[in-house]
Amino acid sequence: MVENVWRGFASDNYAGIHPDVLTAISGVNEGHQAAYGADSTTAQLDAVVKTHFGSTAVAFPVFNGTGANVLALQAMCKPWEAVICATGAHINSDEGGAPEKVAGLKMHTIPTVDGKLTPALVETQAWGFGDEHRAQPKVVSITNSTELGTVYTPEEVRALVDQAHGLGMYVHLDGARISNAAAALGVPMRAFTTDVGVDAVSLGATKNGALGVEAVLILNPELESAIKYVRKSAMQLGSKMRFMSAQLIAMYEGDLWLRNAQHANTMAQRLYEGVKGIAGVSVMPPQANALFPVLPADSIARLQEQVRFYTWDHMKNQVRWMCAWDTTEADVDNFIAVVRAELS
Amino acid sequence: MVENVWRGFASDNYAGIHPDVLTAISGVNEGHQAAYGADSTTAQLDAVVKTHFGSTAVAFPVFNGTGANVLALQAMCKPWEAVICATGAHINSDEGGAPEKVAGLKMHTIPTVDGKLTPALVETQAWGFGDEHRAQPKVVSITNSTELGTVYTPEEVRALVDQAHGLGMYVHLDGARISNAAAALGVPMRAFTTDVGVDAVSLGATKNGALGVEAVLILNPELESAIKYVRKSAMQLGSKMRFMSAQLIAMYEGDLWLRNAQHANTMAQRLYEGVKGIAGVSVMPPQANALFPVLPADSIARLQEQVRFYTWDHMKNQVRWMCAWDTTEADVDNFIAVVRAELS
Amino acid sequence: MVENVWRGFASDNYAGIHPDVLTAISGVNEGHQAAYGADSTTAQLDAVVKTHFGSTAVAFPVFNGTGANVLALQAMCKPWEAVICATGAHINSDEGGAPEKVAGLKMHTIPTVDGKLTPALVETQAWGFGDEHRAQPKVVSITNSTELGTVYTPEEVRALVDQAHGLGMYVHLDGARISNAAAALGVPMRAFTTDVGVDAVSLGATKNGALGVEAVLILNPELESAIKYVRKSAMQLGSKMRFMSAQLIAMYEGDLWLRNAQHANTMAQRLYEGVKGIAGVSVMPPQANALFPVLPADSIARLQEQVRFYTWDHMKNQVRWMCAWDTTEADVDNFIAVVRAELS
Amino acid sequence: MVENVWRGFASDNYAGIHPDVLTAISGVNEGHQAAYGADSTTAQLDAVVKTHFGSTAVAFPVFNGTGANVLALQAMCKPWEAVICATGAHINSDEGGAPEKVAGLKMHTIPTVDGKLTPALVETQAWGFGDEHRAQPKVVSITNSTELGTVYTPEEVRALVDQAHGLGMYVHLDGARISNAAAALGVPMRAFTTDVGVDAVSLGATKNGALGVEAVLILNPELESAIKYVRKSAMQLGSKMRFMSAQLIAMYEGDLWLRNAQHANTMAQRLYEGVKGIAGVSVMPPQANALFPVLPADSIARLQEQVRFYTWDHMKNQVRWMCAWDTTEADVDNFIAVVRAELS
Repeated sequence: MVENVWRGFASDNYAGIHPDVLTAISGVNEGHQAAYGADSTTAQLDAVVKTHFGSTAVAFPVFNGTGANVLALQAMCKPWEAVICATGAHINSDEGGAPEKVAGLKMHTIPTVDGKLTPALVETQAWGFGDEHRAQPKVVSITNSTELGTVYTPEEVRALVDQAHGLGMYVHLDGARISNAAAALGVPMRAFTTDVGVDAVSLGATKNGALGVEAVLILNPELESAIKYVRKSAMQLGSKMRFMSAQLIAMYEGDLWLRNAQHANTMAQRLYEGVKGIAGVSVMPPQANALFPVLPADSIARLQEQVRFYTWDHMKNQVRWMCAWDTTEADVDNFIAVVRAELS
Repeated sequence: MVENVWRGFASDNYAGIHPDVLTAISGVNEGHQAAYGADSTTAQLDAVVKTHFGSTAVAFPVFNGTGANVLALQAMCKPWEAVICATGAHINSDEGGAPEKVAGLKMHTIPTVDGKLTPALVETQAWGFGDEHRAQPKVVSITNSTELGTVYTPEEVRALVDQAHGLGMYVHLDGARISNAAAALGVPMRAFTTDVGVDAVSLGATKNGALGVEAVLILNPELESAIKYVRKSAMQLGSKMRFMSAQLIAMYEGDLWLRNAQHANTMAQRLYEGVKGIAGVSVMPPQANALFPVLPADSIARLQEQVRFYTWDHMKNQVRWMCAWDTTEADVDNFIAVVRAELS
Repeated sequence: MVENVWRGFASDNYAGIHPDVLTAISGVNEGHQAAYGADSTTAQLDAVVKTHFGSTAVAFPVFNGTGANVLALQAMCKPWEAVICATGAHINSDEGGAPEKVAGLKMHTIPTVDGKLTPALVETQAWGFGDEHRAQPKVVSITNSTELGTVYTPEEVRALVDQAHGLGMYVHLDGARISNAAAALGVPMRAFTTDVGVDAVSLGATKNGALGVEAVLILNPELESAIKYVRKSAMQLGSKMRFMSAQLIAMYEGDLWLRNAQHANTMAQRLYEGVKGIAGVSVMPPQANALFPVLPADSIARLQEQVRFYTWDHMKNQVRWMCAWDTTEADVDNFIAVVRAELS
Repeated sequence: MVENVWRGFASDNYAGIHPDVLTAISGVNEGHQAAYGADSTTAQLDAVVKTHFGSTAVAFPVFNGTGANVLALQAMCKPWEAVICATGAHINSDEGGAPEKVAGLKMHTIPTVDGKLTPALVETQAWGFGDEHRAQPKVVSITNSTELGTVYTPEEVRALVDQAHGLGMYVHLDGARISNAAAALGVPMRAFTTDVGVDAVSLGATKNGALGVEAVLILNPELESAIKYVRKSAMQLGSKMRFMSAQLIAMYEGDLWLRNAQHANTMAQRLYEGVKGIAGVSVMPPQANALFPVLPADSIARLQEQVRFYTWDHMKNQVRWMCAWDTTEADVDNFIAVVRAELS
C-alpha cells in the first residue's frame, strides 16, 4: 500500500501512469517480438507520429528526456559545434552536464526573463562563424512550454527558425511538455514545429501520463540517419521496445495527450484563480500547467510541510507549483485553502 | 492482436513481461511519488538486494544493460584508465562503442575460446602500470553467464578477483544473465560475486522477465558515491523510478529470478538432448540457456525461414539458439522436429 | 625575408622568440636525451619552479595554454563535476569548446564587468551540491591578468580560495599572462598563487617570449598524480621535451619573465599616457599590458588598416590594444601619432 | 653541458634537432606575425606540401604524432564510427587511449605478425555495416613504416585502399616514419599515399630531425573542412605557428627528409650486417630504420646497462634497436662490438 504523502504540486513526474497506457503495455505483452525496434508495435508508431507531424516525421523511442535532448543535439552538431539556449534551459541547468559529458556539446547560454529566447537574444550568441577559437554555433534549442511555464506561439518559433536557418543553424524544440503548450495555444503540435520549420523535437510522454518513454522526433530528414546509431552508442536503445512504443501510441493515437494536458493546464488556471487574490501571493497567470508565485519567505517552508512543491529561486522567494494529468479539483481546492490559512 | 511470427530462439529479449512483473508495476501505480528514486518503492529495493548480495550491496536502477555496464566501469576508472575484457564481451562487441563514446574507456581485449577469461589470459593485458603511453589497466570485466553461454564457477571468479586486486584493479561482472549462471551452478548469486570479492555487478532483469530495467550493483563501497552522479550525467536516471524498482523487486524479492532462469536453462538442455544426435549438428552441452551449434552452411538460412535464430559466426557456420523464461516444451520439441526434418 | 606588415598591437603572441630562449634551445641540442620528460633538462626545471612557487610545486610542460588549462581542470574534476568561471574566461570563450569536448567539463559561467570574479559572484553559481541534476561545481577558475587586462590582488585571490576551499572546491589560475600580473603588482608570482592557496596554475611562457610552451603547475599535491597520465591521453606530451623545458628554464631561471612582462606593461602605460587625452578615445588606465579603449565606430576600421589590433566588442565599439615583450617605444609613439591623426 | 649517457638505439626521438631546422626557426624570428597560422611562413608551407603530395594536399601543422593521428581519425568518423587497425598500431597501443578519450573512437583491432594489415585481415573486422550494435567501421588506419619496422609497398597500400573505398571507408596512414618508408622503397612519398588513394596522412617530422612538429595531411578534400576546427578543440593549435611551419619547410622543401631517413636506414642495415652472424642474435634484415632482434634472456639487461634500447616483447626476449638521423657509424660499430663481447 503506497501512502499518498507525496501528493501535491512538486512535479508532473510525481504522477503515475494513466490507465490507458498501462492497458496498452499489457496489450502487447503476448508472445515474442523482435527486440530493439523491429517489432510490430514500433512499426505502428510511425503512422501515429506522421498524423501529428507530417509525412517526413520519424520518431525514435528513447528512455527519458535527457536522452531525447542529447541525441537530437548530437545528430545536429559536428564535434566542434555548439548549442545556443536559454541559461534556464533544462539542457543547460538540469541534465547534470549530460550534453557536455556524453556528447561534448558546448552551450552558449543566454539569460532570459521568462525562459523564452527571441531573435534579438539569439543574436548575442550567434556569431563567430568560421573562427575556430569559438565553438561554432549550430543549433538554437528552445523548450515549449518552457521551464518557466511560458509558451512560445507558432509565430515566435517561426521567427527563431527563420533566423537560425538563415545562419545555417538548426532549431531543436525540447517538448517535454509539448502537449501542455499545444493545449494552451489551442493548436495542433505541428503548428509550432513542422509548420514553422523546426528540425527536431524531443517528444515528451512521461510527464503527461506514460510510465517512462520519450522520443527523438526528426522533422528534417537530413538528421535522420544519425539517430539509429547515436541512440545505441549513447545508451538509449531499449531491447523490449514494443513496450516503449505502446506507451507512445496510447498517448498520441487518440487524444489522450491533449486531454491530459488540457486537464493539467485547467488545474493550474483553477489554482491561479484561487490564490491570486490572497495577500502575500504574487503570481502571474499560468500559460500552461505551472505557476511560479513569489511568497513571503517564512511561509514557504511551512507550506511545504503540508503540501509538496519546490522552491524555484531562493533569492527571490519564488516557488514552483506544477499541476499534473492526475491533479484533482480537490487537490487544488485543498491547496488553496492551505495557502489562504498560512497567509491570513 | 500480435502475431507470433517472432517466436523462436533468437534472443531472450524477444520474450515479453512476466505477469508478476506487470502486476507489480500496476501495484505501485497509485497516487504521487517523489521522482528520481526518492520514492517508497525504491526504498524497499535496498533490503531485497542486501538479502542476496550482503550488507554492503547497493543497487541503482538504470534503463538497460549498456547503461549498467558503462556506469559501473566509469565509476571504476579515472579518465586515463582502461578495461580488460574478452574480445567477445558485450561491452566490446555489442554496445555500439558506448564505453568509448560515453565514457572514453579504452578496452584492452583478449581473444578467448569460450568467452571466459583466466588469470593467464588477463596477464597478457595487465601490464604497463605507471607507463603513461599505455592506457592504465584498472578493471577486469567478465560476463556470467558469458556471451558464449558458458559459466564461470565461484572459484574461477575468485582467481580473477585475487589477481586483479593484487594488481590494484577492480573486477566488474556483467550479470545480464546472472540468474542463468546462478541457476546453472546451483548456488546463490553472492557465491560468485560478493563472496569472492567482485566489486560491482550489472544486475540483469530484462532478459529474465522484466519490462525493461537493470541495476548497477555496487559491492565495494568505495565505488558507491560516483553512481548517483554518473547515472544522471550519462542519461540513465529515470523519473518515475518506482516503476523500475517495482520490476526489480518482483524479480528478486521471491524466487522469480531463479524459477525463470531454471526454466530457460532446462529448455536449453531439452533442446540439446533433442538435437545432439542429429547428423550434421555439432553442439556442446549448454551450461546455461544457450546453445551454439555448428550446422551445414546451406541449412542455416532454410532453418531461419521457419524458426528465428541468429547466426553467430558466419565463418564457422555457427549459430546461437537462446532459450527464454517463456520458451515452452512445445517450442523446443517443434524446433527439434524442424531441425531433424531439415538435416535428414 | 619576413615583412613586418603584422607589427602592431593585435596580440602578444604575434611577437617572436626572445633571443635568450632561442639560445637555450640550441644549448641543449647536443647528443641524445631520453624522450617524454626523462631528460636532464626537464630534471633541472623542477628546481627553477620550486624557487618561485615553493617546495610542493611541480611543473609539467605542455604545448599550449588550452592544454595547460584543460589538463589542470581535468585533474580537478570527476566526470560529473563542473567549473565556475567568468563568461569571458578564455576557457569559456576562446578554446573552441576544448574543455567540454576533450574533458566533458561543464562550465557554470558568470557575467562580469571587468573579467574578475568575486566571492559574491561565485556564490551565484556555487550551489546545488549533492543534487545530481546539477553538474557539481568543483573548481573556481580565474585568470591573472584577466582577459580584460585587469589584475587580481593577492587578497582578492585569497578571498576566492577561502570561499572555494570552504565549499570543497579547488581554485585554478590561468596564468597565460601571470608574469604581467606579477610585474603589475610588484610581488613574486607565489604571492597570488602558492601563498594564498591556489591549487593549480597554467604557467604561461609563449606570450612572454618563448617559442611555444606552457606548463601545468600543480601546487596542491593531491592533484599531481593525474597530470602525467592526462597529459598523454589529452595529446599534450612532447617527445623531445628537453626543448620545451629549456624554454621554461630560460624564461624563469633568471628574471627574463619579469623583465619582459615589465617592459610590456610599461609600453601599455606609455600608450595610455599618449592617447588618454585624445578626443574620441575613452580608455581606462592599463593594469597590465593591454588597453581596451572605446573609439568612434567609423575610426576603428581606418585605424586597423594602418596598425593591427582586434575589435573586442563590436556592440560597444571597444577594441583591444595589446603590448608584447618586444613592443618598442617607437611602435607606441608611432601608434599614438596614428590615433591622433585619425581622431583629429 | 649535456652528457651523452643517453646515446644509443632506444628511439629516434632521443635524437636532437637537425641544424638546418634550427636555422630555419631562427630565420623566421623577426618582427611580428599573425598567430594561429595566418603568418607568411605557414602560407609557404602549402606549396611545399603540394610538391610532394599533389594539388589537393593540404597540411595542418600540429604538435605531435598523437595529435596528427587523432585529428585525422576524428575528421573521418562520425560519433558512432570506428577505426580498424593492427593491435600493435601506435594509435591502439601507445597513445594512452587518446583516440578513445579525446575523440570517442572505437578501435577494432587485428593481431598481425609483422605490423602490416592485409585485405584478408581487414575483412575480419570490416563487417556489421548498418547494425547499430556494432561501432560502424569507417577507417582503416595503417602505419608506414610500421611499428615493427616493416614497410608497405605502394601495391599493398593500394589493395587496402581499394577494399576500404569499396566498403565506404577511408584510409589513414600514420606517417610518423613516412620518410623512412619512402627511403626504403626508393619512391616518392606520394607513391604510397596520394597515388594509391590514401585519404589522410599523419606527416612526421619530429623523429626525423625536427624540434617538434607533425602535420595532418589531408589528401581527400571532403575531409579538409573539419581539421581547422578539431585542431583547435582538440588543443593542437599552436599560436606562434610560423615556428612550426618553418620546421616542416626545412624538412620537406629540399631533400633533408630523405637524406636523414636514408642515413637512419643505412645505419640500421650496417647494424644488421654487424650482428647477424653473432651467435645468440636472431634478427631479420631491417626494412627501414629498426631491428627487432631476439636475444638470450640474460643478456638483455646487461646490454642495456651499456647501450640504451628498449625491450619490445618480454615474453619473446625481443628487443628494438632504432637508428636515428644522427646515429653515427661509430655508434653502430661500437654497439656491434658490445653485442659481440656480451654474447661471446
